[in-house]
Amino acid sequence: MESLRQFLFALSAAAAVGFVSIIFVLRWVLHFKEGLAWDGGLAEFNWHPVLIVSGFIFLQGMAIIVYRLPWTWQCSKLMMKFIHAGLNLVAFIFAVISMVAVFDFHNAAKIPNMYSLHSWLGLIAVILYCLQLVLGVGMYLIPITPVSWRAAFMPLHVFSGLLLFAGVIAVALMGITEKLIFGLSNPKYKDSPPEAIFVNVLGVLLVVFGALILWIATRPAWKRPSDQILHILHTNGGGEDNTKVGPALSQLSDGADAETSGDVRRRNNKLDDQTN
Amino acid sequence: MESLRQFLFALSAAAAVGFVSIIFVLRWVLHFKEGLAWDGGLAEFNWHPVLIVSGFIFLQGMAIIVYRLPWTWQCSKLMMKFIHAGLNLVAFIFAVISMVAVFDFHNAAKIPNMYSLHSWLGLIAVILYCLQLVLGVGMYLIPITPVSWRAAFMPLHVFSGLLLFAGVIAVALMGITEKLIFGLSNPKYKDSPPEAIFVNVLGVLLVVFGALILWIATRPAWKRPSDQILHILHTNGGGEDNTKVGPALSQLSDGADAETSGDVRRRNNKLDDQTN
Repeated sequence: MESLRQFLFALSAAAAVGFVSIIFVLRWVLHFKEGLAWDGGLAEFNWHPVLIVSGFIFLQGMAIIVYRLPWTWQCSKLMMKFIHAGLNLVAFIFAVISMVAVFDFHNAAKIPNMYSLHSWLGLIAVILYCLQLVLGVGMYLIPITPVSWRAAFMPLHVFSGLLLFAGVIAVALMGITEKLIFGLSNPKYKDSPPEAIFVNVLGVLLVVFGALILWIATRPAWKRPSDQILHILHTNGGGEDNTKVGPALSQLSDGADAETSGDVRRRNNKLDDQTN
Repeated sequence: MESLRQFLFALSAAAAVGFVSIIFVLRWVLHFKEGLAWDGGLAEFNWHPVLIVSGFIFLQGMAIIVYRLPWTWQCSKLMMKFIHAGLNLVAFIFAVISMVAVFDFHNAAKIPNMYSLHSWLGLIAVILYCLQLVLGVGMYLIPITPVSWRAAFMPLHVFSGLLLFAGVIAVALMGITEKLIFGLSNPKYKDSPPEAIFVNVLGVLLVVFGALILWIATRPAWKRPSDQILHILHTNGGGEDNTKVGPALSQLSDGADAETSGDVRRRNNKLDDQTN
């Protein structure tokens, strides 16, 4: 129960900070900047931070932790994989549209593309994210992929997923820095006008959101139990015929049907190292 | 053996990329910028990127993976803790001196301090790094700290260590962005002069270095085996009297004295979850 309570606290904090970040980026472009439009001007550029924060950061964060939600453990693993891939696909589409907005704006304003470190790392992140998506679907959603391949690829899939998530936040922080330097002229960024303070706080919120998602994603005790264990819990209560299913069931043999999901999390995390 | 070869490859790549990054930052300030001095001017500011890359990034990265080096496994855990803490302390001192250089330069040039997101997150990172250092020494180097506290704190220590390392690199990328925008005037950053390309490459190198260090630090198979197992390997060959030391020795009972360190890594990682 303690573990479940901690999980729900971390999840609520992440959702709240992510939600506030989206409010902040909307207030930034609607209140401090030129609003939103698709006209080749600054209002089109403004789609870039909005889509990055709401899609490439918030949705990607949700996609990463979707397996951890205890109320999804009764859903099939296949359905959860589709939700995980679907959220990542939407995040990717948001990122691509947000890049189109920047290229449109740059071309209309005769500003060179792809000169800054922000643009280099941002483009690398989008390309690697696309690769991660294609490889993830190929490995885990195409039924003919051998189980041994899936298991062998999983550590790399998890590592690159978390690294890309952290990388996207880092690139967003660089983008905020660029935009505040270029976008503030009188008063300048160094004079700390209200917009500068407000958007700096947005940057801090993005870091806190990233830290919470990474914390949730890397706690072994909060992982989705293996389908085998979930099936046992939902059918025979886990107290019978331990020998057939090996160590998974034997871990549950002392009264699993009386356990809460929080307790099950703690017990099973070591059995499930390669499954999500 | 395969695991050991992969480890040595990843370690060599990290060391090489880290070394090249230091060369890059030195060439940046010595060739493209005003060199190094302690005079309140731009040459004093230049200590900031040099000390951050060589100390707060490279040395911190080395401190993180120092337990993973197989040739240190014959050293006592206590000595390795001192090396880990010592490297982190030196990295912290480098970071503090690098901040003094910036404040000196800003004050002499009448540029406000602490207005940018880079400065906010950089200061937060240094403060949290100091806290991590103090708590780490208190937990793991003061003999009276209960073992149960050490074990309970370890997941947070590891997570915040890796998060701070990634965060410091993100802050450095923001700093590079700021410096290239403010430091290049004719031609400007957007005109992609050689300095801009060169320093963008430095930013990419820092990301690759960070990714390699995080990969090395998070592979369970590359962790330092527990002292118990190392002692057994070095004294009786691991083939006798399994019952006294429990599961650790029983994992090694089939001919541990013939194993290479690479094989031992793979076998033991699950026994050592809480020890480094």
